[in-house]
Amino acid sequence: MKKVRVAVVGANGYTGGEMVRLLAGHPSVDISILTSRQFAGKNITEIFPSLRGILDMPLVELDVADTARTCDVAFLAIPHTQAMPIVAGLIREGVKVVDYSADFRLQDPKVYEKWYKAPHTESALLKAAVYGLPELHANAIRTAQLVALPGCYPTGAILALAPAIKNKVIDLKEIVINSMSGVSGAGQTPSPQTHFPEIADNLRPYGVTTHRHIPEIEQELSLIAGEQVNVLFTPHLVPANRGILTTVTASTVSETSSAELVTIYRRFYDGAPFVRVLDQGMYPELRFVRGSNYCDIGLAYDQRTKKILAFSAIDNLCKGAAGQAVQCMNIMFDFPEHTGLRFGGLTP
Amino acid sequence: MKKVRVAVVGANGYTGGEMVRLLAGHPSVDISILTSRQFAGKNITEIFPSLRGILDMPLVELDVADTARTCDVAFLAIPHTQAMPIVAGLIREGVKVVDYSADFRLQDPKVYEKWYKAPHTESALLKAAVYGLPELHANAIRTAQLVALPGCYPTGAILALAPAIKNKVIDLKEIVINSMSGVSGAGQTPSPQTHFPEIADNLRPYGVTTHRHIPEIEQELSLIAGEQVNVLFTPHLVPANRGILTTVTASTVSETSSAELVTIYRRFYDGAPFVRVLDQGMYPELRFVRGSNYCDIGLAYDQRTKKILAFSAIDNLCKGAAGQAVQCMNIMFDFPEHTGLRFGGLTP
Amino acid sequence: MKKVRVAVVGANGYTGGEMVRLLAGHPSVDISILTSRQFAGKNITEIFPSLRGILDMPLVELDVADTARTCDVAFLAIPHTQAMPIVAGLIREGVKVVDYSADFRLQDPKVYEKWYKAPHTESALLKAAVYGLPELHANAIRTAQLVALPGCYPTGAILALAPAIKNKVIDLKEIVINSMSGVSGAGQTPSPQTHFPEIADNLRPYGVTTHRHIPEIEQELSLIAGEQVNVLFTPHLVPANRGILTTVTASTVSETSSAELVTIYRRFYDGAPFVRVLDQGMYPELRFVRGSNYCDIGLAYDQRTKKILAFSAIDNLCKGAAGQAVQCMNIMFDFPEHTGLRFGGLTP
Amino acid sequence: MKKVRVAVVGANGYTGGEMVRLLAGHPSVDISILTSRQFAGKNITEIFPSLRGILDMPLVELDVADTARTCDVAFLAIPHTQAMPIVAGLIREGVKVVDYSADFRLQDPKVYEKWYKAPHTESALLKAAVYGLPELHANAIRTAQLVALPGCYPTGAILALAPAIKNKVIDLKEIVINSMSGVSGAGQTPSPQTHFPEIADNLRPYGVTTHRHIPEIEQELSLIAGEQVNVLFTPHLVPANRGILTTVTASTVSETSSAELVTIYRRFYDGAPFVRVLDQGMYPELRFVRGSNYCDIGLAYDQRTKKILAFSAIDNLCKGAAGQAVQCMNIMFDFPEHTGLRFGGLTP
Repeated sequence: MKKVRVAVVGANGYTGGEMVRLLAGHPSVDISILTSRQFAGKNITEIFPSLRGILDMPLVELDVADTARTCDVAFLAIPHTQAMPIVAGLIREGVKVVDYSADFRLQDPKVYEKWYKAPHTESALLKAAVYGLPELHANAIRTAQLVALPGCYPTGAILALAPAIKNKVIDLKEIVINSMSGVSGAGQTPSPQTHFPEIADNLRPYGVTTHRHIPEIEQELSLIAGEQVNVLFTPHLVPANRGILTTVTASTVSETSSAELVTIYRRFYDGAPFVRVLDQGMYPELRFVRGSNYCDIGLAYDQRTKKILAFSAIDNLCKGAAGQAVQCMNIMFDFPEHTGLRFGGLTP
Repeated sequence: MKKVRVAVVGANGYTGGEMVRLLAGHPSVDISILTSRQFAGKNITEIFPSLRGILDMPLVELDVADTARTCDVAFLAIPHTQAMPIVAGLIREGVKVVDYSADFRLQDPKVYEKWYKAPHTESALLKAAVYGLPELHANAIRTAQLVALPGCYPTGAILALAPAIKNKVIDLKEIVINSMSGVSGAGQTPSPQTHFPEIADNLRPYGVTTHRHIPEIEQELSLIAGEQVNVLFTPHLVPANRGILTTVTASTVSETSSAELVTIYRRFYDGAPFVRVLDQGMYPELRFVRGSNYCDIGLAYDQRTKKILAFSAIDNLCKGAAGQAVQCMNIMFDFPEHTGLRFGGLTP
Repeated sequence: MKKVRVAVVGANGYTGGEMVRLLAGHPSVDISILTSRQFAGKNITEIFPSLRGILDMPLVELDVADTARTCDVAFLAIPHTQAMPIVAGLIREGVKVVDYSADFRLQDPKVYEKWYKAPHTESALLKAAVYGLPELHANAIRTAQLVALPGCYPTGAILALAPAIKNKVIDLKEIVINSMSGVSGAGQTPSPQTHFPEIADNLRPYGVTTHRHIPEIEQELSLIAGEQVNVLFTPHLVPANRGILTTVTASTVSETSSAELVTIYRRFYDGAPFVRVLDQGMYPELRFVRGSNYCDIGLAYDQRTKKILAFSAIDNLCKGAAGQAVQCMNIMFDFPEHTGLRFGGLTP
Repeated sequence: MKKVRVAVVGANGYTGGEMVRLLAGHPSVDISILTSRQFAGKNITEIFPSLRGILDMPLVELDVADTARTCDVAFLAIPHTQAMPIVAGLIREGVKVVDYSADFRLQDPKVYEKWYKAPHTESALLKAAVYGLPELHANAIRTAQLVALPGCYPTGAILALAPAIKNKVIDLKEIVINSMSGVSGAGQTPSPQTHFPEIADNLRPYGVTTHRHIPEIEQELSLIAGEQVNVLFTPHLVPANRGILTTVTASTVSETSSAELVTIYRRFYDGAPFVRVLDQGMYPELRFVRGSNYCDIGLAYDQRTKKILAFSAIDNLCKGAAGQAVQCMNIMFDFPEHTGLRFGGLTP
């Protein structure tokens, strides 16, 4: 079988490294190029010694033309604003792009500019960009040349809310999203906020009312609702490496039950290989998705307050980033959606 | 100065041990009796080797009459239902009691029986019991013979909500409380749920819609509101030893601002030595209260959704249990409220 | 290609679960039977929700005759002494056995009885049992009917010492082994020693001078040395889930150098796909082997004290248990040694 | 009672902050000056929000003359080489100095220059400097004007070895020291090595054969032995905040027993309030000394290999740094040695 030739741009960060880890084990992929601005000249195993014996490959500077010649698809794991011109260049050269930056997630460049405080210099591409959440947009992903991968928080939050909104279960004015994330989501660059003794045995909220993933969540939920949805989203940092647990609460518009919620969600995600809607009374935990591409969802209706609870758990580096990238690629290249991703979480 | 003679009943658990740790450092306390049903005959240092060189004292079986003869006040750190007859016995003998069980927190024995699935056999005492949250009930505590200490979650949740409710800032129908707790809150008895590999690098919700601290929170908030308040409360277990971070969200009844919230909260807690309302834009973290009796509160108003956010952080074993017990005792015996408790959190 | 039909006996524990995780992803394996005394009747996904969507299979009571009919090989992950009669039964029925208990690791039943305080009731089988460390015994494993998998600590310790002993670098009287292990090595059963708050932010030695893995280490090192070797082995428990870091020190019999040590070790492990001898100046870390079957080894010579240092890192559940089991099976059934095991550690 | 007026120089780091925490609770101390080059102008509570409500004081630039006017003693928590001229200046002005840098620990400036790769510009002061380990040098500390506090690792290692060497129990050529440290020992400055995801669920050795605490350990052990002692010392980084567990092994010169070791150590540390020699069969753990000034020591003799094991546990920021500083100050100013330090570890 012909293999897909891939490049990973920015292979030295946590997301890039996770892409390499997953792609190295994918049966239908040839890794052709790994790039790193900072570490060009070094071997990938110097950055990720975990890959010793598995993948022996130099990191190089990105060369768009060369990438176009030798690759079918490029995975980007570089910061927003830096991704913009590179995506544009690769698209012009005919390479498919799966981009983990925020640059092509928001359809309206004005929203981008407001939340990211930076001009959008490639807004012509936004029309073509597909938001890479397969559970919502599989058909568009199939034929996309540019997939803009969701942020890690939006993946967990949108999957936890989409069926309830679609089925008009909840009051769109009373949606509250609290997420707790492991620290790998903050990336590989050391900072006072991610220094071990400031995180261990600690918890803290951050980005209160201002986190940049808010417009992304609202864009996708509004699309489903058919009207503008605003949410109160609050992320928290917890002493764990990987994973996001999201707790969504929302007032209901009429009586429901936990059992009915499970039914609604299972119907919505029927055929989605990576969403596991748990039985009534079961709730997700990070350890069951750690290192895997699954999103576990648990549901409850609180009769006393007439509100629903929806919990989701993902591995932020996998379903929240690199795994979702591979899932999108599988769809784009007509592989079974779970190819190279069919393994359970590392428990314990 | 005459010292207060104290007994700690159930000195072998985490809360009992923390009481002993704090009382051993209190300048106006003589520890007279330490009891333990399970470990009677052993020395307290066999259970808490951290106390070697500081307190050398045997654990004994509880003897109510002997306690009455030799102690002015008894701290109870034993399970609910077990506490009931012991509290009654001690009160009859004239000993003041500071009880950490749930047995005397709820004024209505029917509510107790509904949530705890056990008969209340000492409901005559409920009238006299004072809910031991000094920031709300200092005057009643001053003259109380029986103080029922709040649960750890209610301490953080009530302190985060009281000023907003008192000042009629929020819609009482749209209060959502999410708490994240360290594992010491689950006590000292091993269980599959608290086995290290099931907690480390993990997160999970539990007690979804059913946690027994709900009626306590609602009782106190309803008292402040002057009408019945129901809340959606969801606790989560996180890989930390000590501490509870509570994130409260609520819809507002009219426009406000973060600055106004800070003003309202500071006015409410004026003179309360252990509540620290943070400057606008600052949020609490566990590490700043670890091992201390402080409750840090941070506030924000989200203009986009017209909701407020109130965060609180406490050490569940200290302000959430043993420290609050000592704070209550200080009030009961006319010591300055911070006596023996005036130390900052262990950072890092 | 014909697949190997396997049974996992004791599939509900951490080691059993890891076997199932690895076998479920092995391209040449059919999982035929999963047994559990405690959870027979439940589905494996109820014990390991991480496997939902991947493996849907009931746990059953062990039936030796049925296992013989339907399986080519049985993996045992049950406690010592319990394994003995089951191994014997399976062997009699012609099933190959890969056993993780300690029952067939020690060639001398008297040594077994001394360290395990239990009679060895199947000592006739000891002759046939092969110590399942492929880097030392690949040829014997190839034709073995009974493979006794090494303990987790011995795997790390023996691999760190074998080349130095084989090459007569060190004084056999001055070998000191210190190991630090994550808590999953203690198994799935809760105990006060593995209760989260007793482990987190803590470190402790245990099994001082008495750990049962000592005779195993000494047996294998003595075989290599051609004379009796005694070691001082001390394990420590650390707040991590998976992994063992072993620090070996030993006095040398003559001058050497770090570079020479690297050369000696690389020569010794030439062709061993799962031992990675690091460059001089590099040392192993748990995170590079987490979830993988690799053993990383780092070496140094201290000129000031004329001693060598050898460090090894393994994942105790993988190379220290289930991964090694699969590696042995690959050898026994003539698959490439790395089949189903060729993935790097989960970093971060 | 007249209080001692103190300055803390470098109050913004972990060690400086711990000094402030301890001094703020010391009954006979007035904190007069807190300095910070980096944060002068800020309040100490901005750096350590844990101190809000306890100590409200600005950080200032160091002014040696002003310090001399207003302080009896200065605690230094600044890097080596930076401390040298400041110590000299303060000493000239007649202020007593308790210095946590390495600058005055080593009596021989050539040894300093070899290990620290920097010239010693104040070697005239070395004669007067006293190594601030009260268990060895209490008398000299009593009259010292300059106390050079031990490093954190040397504190644990020397206390674990001193009685065995003094009593000629062990072969001085066969001493192996392995230490495992929490991450606060690496200080407050973020680095890739201390980034949360690189530490959590991980273990690693570092400073292999080259750690700068080696000459300090050897200096003090040689003084006790009356001859040159060399040790193989290897530190490891573990996922904990505070604490060092040290495992010492050494060959014996003649038969001994665990009981005899306990007797020898207890005799040696008779009267030392902060060393707790545990009963035979008991071993130290970090959690029993966390946040406290105690050093717990456990002992064993291994008859099989004729070696001894000595384990010590300290809190690196407390007995390994700031607590030891206060202990030295107590001795220098004739306070009972445990003043302000008589509290147990935070368990859990």
